[in-house]
Amino acid sequence: MTVKVAVAGATGYAGGELLRLLLAHPDIEIGALTAASSAGTPLRQHQPHLVPLADRVVTETTPEKLAGHDVVFLALPHGHSAQLAAQLGPDVLVVDLGADHRLTEETDWQRWYGGDHAGTWPYGLPELPGARERLKGSKRIAVPGCFPTGGTLALAPAFAAGLVKPEVTVVAVTGTSGAGKSLKPHLLGSEVMGSASAYGVGGAHRHTPEFAQNLSLVAGERVTVSFTPVLAPMPRGILTTASAPLAADTDLATVRSAYEKAYDAEPFVQLLPEGSWPTTAATVGSNNVQLQVAVDADAGRLVVVAAIDNLTKGTAGGAVQSMNIALGLPETTGLPAVGVAP
Amino acid sequence: MTVKVAVAGATGYAGGELLRLLLAHPDIEIGALTAASSAGTPLRQHQPHLVPLADRVVTETTPEKLAGHDVVFLALPHGHSAQLAAQLGPDVLVVDLGADHRLTEETDWQRWYGGDHAGTWPYGLPELPGARERLKGSKRIAVPGCFPTGGTLALAPAFAAGLVKPEVTVVAVTGTSGAGKSLKPHLLGSEVMGSASAYGVGGAHRHTPEFAQNLSLVAGERVTVSFTPVLAPMPRGILTTASAPLAADTDLATVRSAYEKAYDAEPFVQLLPEGSWPTTAATVGSNNVQLQVAVDADAGRLVVVAAIDNLTKGTAGGAVQSMNIALGLPETTGLPAVGVAP
Amino acid sequence: MTVKVAVAGATGYAGGELLRLLLAHPDIEIGALTAASSAGTPLRQHQPHLVPLADRVVTETTPEKLAGHDVVFLALPHGHSAQLAAQLGPDVLVVDLGADHRLTEETDWQRWYGGDHAGTWPYGLPELPGARERLKGSKRIAVPGCFPTGGTLALAPAFAAGLVKPEVTVVAVTGTSGAGKSLKPHLLGSEVMGSASAYGVGGAHRHTPEFAQNLSLVAGERVTVSFTPVLAPMPRGILTTASAPLAADTDLATVRSAYEKAYDAEPFVQLLPEGSWPTTAATVGSNNVQLQVAVDADAGRLVVVAAIDNLTKGTAGGAVQSMNIALGLPETTGLPAVGVAP
Amino acid sequence: MTVKVAVAGATGYAGGELLRLLLAHPDIEIGALTAASSAGTPLRQHQPHLVPLADRVVTETTPEKLAGHDVVFLALPHGHSAQLAAQLGPDVLVVDLGADHRLTEETDWQRWYGGDHAGTWPYGLPELPGARERLKGSKRIAVPGCFPTGGTLALAPAFAAGLVKPEVTVVAVTGTSGAGKSLKPHLLGSEVMGSASAYGVGGAHRHTPEFAQNLSLVAGERVTVSFTPVLAPMPRGILTTASAPLAADTDLATVRSAYEKAYDAEPFVQLLPEGSWPTTAATVGSNNVQLQVAVDADAGRLVVVAAIDNLTKGTAGGAVQSMNIALGLPETTGLPAVGVAP
Repeated sequence: MTVKVAVAGATGYAGGELLRLLLAHPDIEIGALTAASSAGTPLRQHQPHLVPLADRVVTETTPEKLAGHDVVFLALPHGHSAQLAAQLGPDVLVVDLGADHRLTEETDWQRWYGGDHAGTWPYGLPELPGARERLKGSKRIAVPGCFPTGGTLALAPAFAAGLVKPEVTVVAVTGTSGAGKSLKPHLLGSEVMGSASAYGVGGAHRHTPEFAQNLSLVAGERVTVSFTPVLAPMPRGILTTASAPLAADTDLATVRSAYEKAYDAEPFVQLLPEGSWPTTAATVGSNNVQLQVAVDADAGRLVVVAAIDNLTKGTAGGAVQSMNIALGLPETTGLPAVGVAP
Repeated sequence: MTVKVAVAGATGYAGGELLRLLLAHPDIEIGALTAASSAGTPLRQHQPHLVPLADRVVTETTPEKLAGHDVVFLALPHGHSAQLAAQLGPDVLVVDLGADHRLTEETDWQRWYGGDHAGTWPYGLPELPGARERLKGSKRIAVPGCFPTGGTLALAPAFAAGLVKPEVTVVAVTGTSGAGKSLKPHLLGSEVMGSASAYGVGGAHRHTPEFAQNLSLVAGERVTVSFTPVLAPMPRGILTTASAPLAADTDLATVRSAYEKAYDAEPFVQLLPEGSWPTTAATVGSNNVQLQVAVDADAGRLVVVAAIDNLTKGTAGGAVQSMNIALGLPETTGLPAVGVAP
Repeated sequence: MTVKVAVAGATGYAGGELLRLLLAHPDIEIGALTAASSAGTPLRQHQPHLVPLADRVVTETTPEKLAGHDVVFLALPHGHSAQLAAQLGPDVLVVDLGADHRLTEETDWQRWYGGDHAGTWPYGLPELPGARERLKGSKRIAVPGCFPTGGTLALAPAFAAGLVKPEVTVVAVTGTSGAGKSLKPHLLGSEVMGSASAYGVGGAHRHTPEFAQNLSLVAGERVTVSFTPVLAPMPRGILTTASAPLAADTDLATVRSAYEKAYDAEPFVQLLPEGSWPTTAATVGSNNVQLQVAVDADAGRLVVVAAIDNLTKGTAGGAVQSMNIALGLPETTGLPAVGVAP
Repeated sequence: MTVKVAVAGATGYAGGELLRLLLAHPDIEIGALTAASSAGTPLRQHQPHLVPLADRVVTETTPEKLAGHDVVFLALPHGHSAQLAAQLGPDVLVVDLGADHRLTEETDWQRWYGGDHAGTWPYGLPELPGARERLKGSKRIAVPGCFPTGGTLALAPAFAAGLVKPEVTVVAVTGTSGAGKSLKPHLLGSEVMGSASAYGVGGAHRHTPEFAQNLSLVAGERVTVSFTPVLAPMPRGILTTASAPLAADTDLATVRSAYEKAYDAEPFVQLLPEGSWPTTAATVGSNNVQLQVAVDADAGRLVVVAAIDNLTKGTAGGAVQSMNIALGLPETTGLPAVGVAP
């Protein structure tokens, strides 16, 4: 089986990572590569590491250029996918790496993004209960945000097992590629190196409602999430520290048992042995999630630390994983189980 | 007035920063420089940036070598200061940058450090209520830990004003110099660069009881602190994200007013204007604390982000600031109000 | 065909990279993993990114443990491979990533390394004239040093075409993983980040004679090399700037033509289009060499800049490439043609 | 004596460093702060580390705003200083941190910069023979480029002593702040971190003629310079590796003696003891130059490695040092002799 794939937004970081993974995918033929402002230039100018695609020419992001493919990945700014997807027809698998179809509540969309809500598509986080069933055979997939990927996987087993109260605190330290290639002063190397900084503090970051939506679904009750993203001097990686008050007096063994139950069969999630703590470096370039749990008896909180590569599991890897499920391919096909370290 | 100063632990990062500041202090004459294992070597081998002291020879850390100074700074591993201080006599100002004399509760000491508790010295965080009075004329000073410096200053005004409940969550992103020069594999450049990692999770870090002690004192009730330190790829800086549930429905103006009241007269603390968020880069090399506050109405939490240089305000700068107060010098003497950026 | 492989030195950076590549190699079965001081520990403690091998236990580096494999990779400090190889027998393919068998001149060995010279093995830089013939079917391979890999490939075409005089200057900027996991103060993250430094200046670095040997062979006359390695704050990558006086008045077209002739058929070497300059980031995790040439008419020199990943093409990738040739496998099998960026 | 100073280009990296130094200068009163596009904004938005100037408002860069000061620093793109200086009058000390007045040859200007040559001002590298005499009392100063500062000081003593031939090779590894705050994709943190790259190769960089001009002056004959700048992942610092063929058989003692003679009385230049090699980290934030020399007998070359902070000694520190001389102040006034490390 050969699946012909187009990538819209091929010159950005998400698009580049997608192409890196697709090049290693045995069932994929890479078709159109499109971008907004770079049409007509060779891909090498934007993605010099993608040597086998160096001479491919980027075209405009139009329904015409994206037509004729089995799968179309959309790595576009929010607000651009709904109309494009509509023109691609219902038989094409459209995988949206943007935010347009993640939220279920229109009021959330309007508050955090503004404008019309494009509707909700099956959510591409296969490790969530019931997710694989919803993805199988689906022709539309909403890829999760990079922060909610780490934070949801960090706490979902605790909520599923009723171990914590629905008042979550998440601080997630992220590499700079999550901010994309946009030319903003605070993203210059001179500003980023040697510096840590927070942004979108106090519930202002657009991933906040997605966190709450995911965890509320698992918890079966409304979960509030105090979310703070922190920019750190590294290109890739998210280290999530998520905590919540313990619902009752719980010991570490009970917690570990809940996480083992949730993740032992998961191909890309590793609960580390006691005493080991995750590093983002160990996940770079892989589709893995590495996590560790702790019970803070004094503070009465469960604390979970999870490491992912924001571009792989947090974006492009998660997208390919869900595509595999939707197409009926083995879920791990083409996805790196091994990181690039140091 | 010329104050003769000795530094024990002159070859480490805290000792080096101390010497950098003391070289710029108009009232200081730098005397003995001592270290455990490097006695007999010139300082240039350990601190090549301290050019005016390049040819000074490091001696052993003994009471004899430290005698004859007005002030002795101890930048030593914990457990080494009590005995040394006793031998220096009651008229020498001893400033302990280690942990030995920070904690008031013997049980806390025994649980987190072990062994006999050396007693409690006046705590060198001048911005805390009543601290300056306790430091003035004192002959013993316990310099705060780097993490509690940032975290305490982030939340003290909120507790002083009764704005938050005593259940605090702190995630602090730190540069690697906080771990010192110890040769551990996870501190190698190859491991650190490109990686974020947590450690001492779930209340295991030794700064946890110091946090709780400080905030409980300000709050007038027992405060619990869930503290997670995160190692980030930068040499210096701590970015603290501290949050707590709001005690009542509070708006941002009320919060800002409480922080302005607490810090407007402080020479080294800057509450940033609304819309600006602190970066550790802006504080590097300075004794400043830059902070910003947010009210998360959905989560019902106050969130405060504070940036410091862990080696300056977080260690050596805080030590010199307290020394100035103890000696009756203007508090800001010799302390940089300006960072080195980018 | 399944080739059973052992790796001696599996806990270091070279060993880890080798295993990362071997895990993706379709013809390889990974057998014994050995190390000097970590015998008895699971590999996850040393290589947390190699998830499929996490539970494999490291054993001692002895001929017994290494016996029974088709291929044995030796990633050991110099001086350890000759005796080990002798005990493995002549039918086992031994690939030495260390320095022991690279140099042809005993006097060079004694001057730069000291002790007895272990002899010379076929040199694993397939892109050199005649190298593939020497590697085919060989049971012993000496993998080049990381610096000579970049520097030799940068200048070999110019010498082969007689374009330059035999007085070479090379400055190579390297990531820290080239120094391995040894616990030395100057390799601490706090020291490395934000700093560039040179070492082994003035011909003192042990790779100097290897450079000269390679280029002299291609040039057919004695080439002198002034080599300066520079440590930069990045985990991986070598950016080589190599230059030599032009033999005669030469234009850029002539130079490019010589390089195209040398490299157009090479699977892992890319001469970039005019106007593009290599970055090490574009090669990270790949077996690629990206290079660009310039003619400095004022200074009368050819200047070549080449980027590689020191652990991949510079060490483990080069080793696997040569192994493939020796075993008669397609040369590119299992080797990444695509980097991981950003 | 109080000297009133204006800074044109106060929002950039050079301007920020200048202000950092001027704030510590006892004889300076900081007057107008101007910038091209940020007029009307408070300085804190651009230089959050300059706390004492946080509320100062940036004004337009016009002769009117710059009038009424004793000294005017111009940190502007090239081509903007001549006209501005003419309007400031002959009694104002104008210190140009840009390139306009560095080159003596009009043909060099036209080839590397283009347009009309604005003329030549006294060159602000006090360590060069005769420079202090030319600077004393001067009302115009051309501050050297950051690369020529390091490279000239690395080789001037060797040329002055006739130790080397006039065919120089320089590779200089620089931090990103040298490129300023311009929003270019290759300067994004995601691109810079983990990567080394060369640019302006083959004599294309505009600092090339300045190198040659300086060294030719010292040598008394035409010196050619093959110059390659390399961008490394650090905000500050330049590590220069400069080499040239030895004029005759020379030993290290002779070389060291020439450098000691040249630099022993220099307040900001340190020839390190044998066996020590400079790191840029040791010079960060200081006005120091740290260097080391080696004789490569095999290659017949002198190799010199020099470390500076590109923003301090390489730009703003050098500017203040020359200003001090021009004004008759002690040369080291207000200039940091101590770096900020780690």
